[in-house]
Amino acid sequence: MSGLAPSRPCPLVHVPRFDHAADVIVVGFGAAGACAAIEAAQLGVRVTLFEVAAGSGGTSALSGGEIYMGGSGGTPIQRAAGFTDETADLFHYLMMAGGPNADEAKTRLYADGSLAHFHWLCQQGVQYKTSYIPEKIVEPVTDDCLIWSGSEEAWPFASEARPCPRGHCPQFVGMGGGRYLMDVLARRVNELGIEVRYNTRAQALITDEIGRVHGIVTRTGAEQHYARARKGVALCTGGFIMNRDMVRRHAPLMLRSQHPLGTVDDGSGIRLGMSGGAAAINMSEGFVTLPWYPPGSLVKGIFINENGQRFINEDCYHGRVSQYILRQPGNSVWLLADQATYAPPQFQQLARIGIGAAGETWEEVERELSLPSGVLVGTVAVYNHYAALGQDPLFHKSPKWLQPLLEPPFVALDCRVDHCFYSSFTLGGLDTLPTGEVLSEDREVIPGLYAAGRTACGLPRWGPGYSSGLSLADATFFGRQAGMQAARSTSL
Amino acid sequence: MSGLAPSRPCPLVHVPRFDHAADVIVVGFGAAGACAAIEAAQLGVRVTLFEVAAGSGGTSALSGGEIYMGGSGGTPIQRAAGFTDETADLFHYLMMAGGPNADEAKTRLYADGSLAHFHWLCQQGVQYKTSYIPEKIVEPVTDDCLIWSGSEEAWPFASEARPCPRGHCPQFVGMGGGRYLMDVLARRVNELGIEVRYNTRAQALITDEIGRVHGIVTRTGAEQHYARARKGVALCTGGFIMNRDMVRRHAPLMLRSQHPLGTVDDGSGIRLGMSGGAAAINMSEGFVTLPWYPPGSLVKGIFINENGQRFINEDCYHGRVSQYILRQPGNSVWLLADQATYAPPQFQQLARIGIGAAGETWEEVERELSLPSGVLVGTVAVYNHYAALGQDPLFHKSPKWLQPLLEPPFVALDCRVDHCFYSSFTLGGLDTLPTGEVLSEDREVIPGLYAAGRTACGLPRWGPGYSSGLSLADATFFGRQAGMQAARSTSL
Repeated sequence: MSGLAPSRPCPLVHVPRFDHAADVIVVGFGAAGACAAIEAAQLGVRVTLFEVAAGSGGTSALSGGEIYMGGSGGTPIQRAAGFTDETADLFHYLMMAGGPNADEAKTRLYADGSLAHFHWLCQQGVQYKTSYIPEKIVEPVTDDCLIWSGSEEAWPFASEARPCPRGHCPQFVGMGGGRYLMDVLARRVNELGIEVRYNTRAQALITDEIGRVHGIVTRTGAEQHYARARKGVALCTGGFIMNRDMVRRHAPLMLRSQHPLGTVDDGSGIRLGMSGGAAAINMSEGFVTLPWYPPGSLVKGIFINENGQRFINEDCYHGRVSQYILRQPGNSVWLLADQATYAPPQFQQLARIGIGAAGETWEEVERELSLPSGVLVGTVAVYNHYAALGQDPLFHKSPKWLQPLLEPPFVALDCRVDHCFYSSFTLGGLDTLPTGEVLSEDREVIPGLYAAGRTACGLPRWGPGYSSGLSLADATFFGRQAGMQAARSTSL
Repeated sequence: MSGLAPSRPCPLVHVPRFDHAADVIVVGFGAAGACAAIEAAQLGVRVTLFEVAAGSGGTSALSGGEIYMGGSGGTPIQRAAGFTDETADLFHYLMMAGGPNADEAKTRLYADGSLAHFHWLCQQGVQYKTSYIPEKIVEPVTDDCLIWSGSEEAWPFASEARPCPRGHCPQFVGMGGGRYLMDVLARRVNELGIEVRYNTRAQALITDEIGRVHGIVTRTGAEQHYARARKGVALCTGGFIMNRDMVRRHAPLMLRSQHPLGTVDDGSGIRLGMSGGAAAINMSEGFVTLPWYPPGSLVKGIFINENGQRFINEDCYHGRVSQYILRQPGNSVWLLADQATYAPPQFQQLARIGIGAAGETWEEVERELSLPSGVLVGTVAVYNHYAALGQDPLFHKSPKWLQPLLEPPFVALDCRVDHCFYSSFTLGGLDTLPTGEVLSEDREVIPGLYAAGRTACGLPRWGPGYSSGLSLADATFFGRQAGMQAARSTSL
């Protein structure tokens, strides 16, 4: 049918007939949608899940499957590794990670409920090995579980919240545990008898004259259907990183990353919500990263921008470093290392990190990079001077990673923004309550409308605060809340 | 009446009766609203203007009244000062000023129509003196007209667009020409017999089931009225800088500025638009400035951040410098000058710029600022070395402003973000066509809805590209387009 678009609701009075009815309609079969559907079904209501692709998984299945969890003394995996993770520390870390517009209510609920969420995931069938990797890595290639996946040990986070590793990777050999996680959740969806309609796009919300959401208009091939949701519609269609027009309008900084991380992620859920008067917030924020470590020894190097200036404590999370890289003037960024600290980046080929210059002296490297005389050399001199004293007064890198760069040959790794593999996804989305209820710009609830995962603006909402496992933590946990709240709401 | 909010439309079927009817309803009596009302009335339709305050002016009346104009060979004022301003140069400058999400269609229309807009303003009664101030200033205290009000002569703008002064200040003695400008426009509104209702708030849009806007619900004191707009509603209520919750959700960087520049600016127009399914874009962007010059000699100084690093070519517009200041780590920023370049900032008292440190050597200044040894001294050494050669290879300050800082005593002016007068307003708003028609997130026109001024996302939409006079240029010019388009549209 012409004239339907996610950004324009279909008035209830225009619905010729309802072809389908459920209590709760979930749109999108990634982690958020799966968890919303599971919880709603477990409360005994009828759930239909619509998915535009031919199978389950969405962008969640592209991920490592890692989930950021802890608090309440620690998960069994954290405890076995010798960590007691206090809820207050998890809360403070997440509040810092949320940035200047952190959502205190969501953060509180998650910090309090994270341990129980771990057990819930286990109950659904997700398996975790009781093991811990202490090294600074991006994602295990083994089936090991617990890793340091954020900036917990780095300034300024470490001074506000006692550091603890909280990245929980499922027991899955190799990278790509997200597919495993989604297979487990999809099995649960199946066991619960939830009706799933694949290859089906949500074209428009159906709303009445006061803005109450009554269902959705769907399209499967050439067929259009009207689906009634007696209790509510939960939008779980991911973010908008693949919709480059939306990225340009809302998060232009993200355009600098050439590698959007997504499957569909066309912002349709956000647009559907906006059509119903929902507020989309923090829309300029995104995750971006270049996997420049491991090996951890490279963390002893220093990043400089095209003016030869340092700009970050290199021991924080790779995604935080990458956010700062994106904010530097120009396109050129180098990681400087010496003979003692250099080792080839593990993801060198994927990341396309090459050697920008090498030399027997830093002067030689500076010349080879065509930098104005003295700027790189000056930066290294100041760094080396203080590193020898175990100090980094400018950027506060932890003493553990401080080592003067003195041993030739010296090298500058080329981390150019337009050349290397900086991947990205969006963090802005619909404003919601911790229950998943979608809000207007005046923070009034839009009746019958829920959102979770990257369609909503959740725990991860500030690029420089992102930590691996936060998006799936948010999607699974708040997907559950949305499913429960919708199931418990009054039927129309 | 309870239950009404700008973020929730009032369904047409709930309107008990219309108390008032006009062809075009304009909300907000600042520059955009005045120009929309004037143009609509000049086309012979009935216009009602609603204003929440007791008088005309809005935030436009707080400004200097300066308008950014040129092209087509130059305005009479530009020509008299010896400048021929080509449309292509104005267009390129404005495209750069618009940043990564510049609106090419609006920029093209404005560049082509800017000279005619100058004449239109004159026809309304705005007077301009044929005079030019070549010095680097913020706003004339005399009744002079033409000033350099942006980054035209600075890198990187100067290399893409031939520089020309384009800030046109009205013939008004003293600062605050915005009140004069608004008085002229208000007189025209009066002459045209436009009905103005003061002390009246727009509470909600009235929309039908397909989203067409039919009017607004207004409130005056305790009285609520329903006003029908047969042709359209133009939202011209300013931005959202005074609504600190909205700022937090959408533009948290702006929270660092403690001095919001606004009158009402509570985002009500943007919220009204969103309630009708409109897209608000570029919401994280804002204008911010510290008036740190004149005198121009200070431009020969260099700014350093808390790490002793330079970060900008100091010869660009004060608002661009201030954007970069806001993006630096930490709160401390200093402007370094020597005996030869120092003179007290003209707005020292207003701006609260104090002396942070002084010394006979740069080492002394560095120590007094408690900076790690060598960082300030190193930055100054590199700067001086190249400045002596007439070069700034790092930040590309123009040779005109390059002078080594060699003459003691040396001084560091304290430009702390949380202490000094950094004022700000928002640049994000409703997405509109050049006609003022408001768009959904899929860029479909919302029938009957128009927006202009800071309620819309117009020409100025990127903090680092802002130039004085751009907001009023946009508000007056695109206010006119909205008024004309609404007046010419089909009546309901």
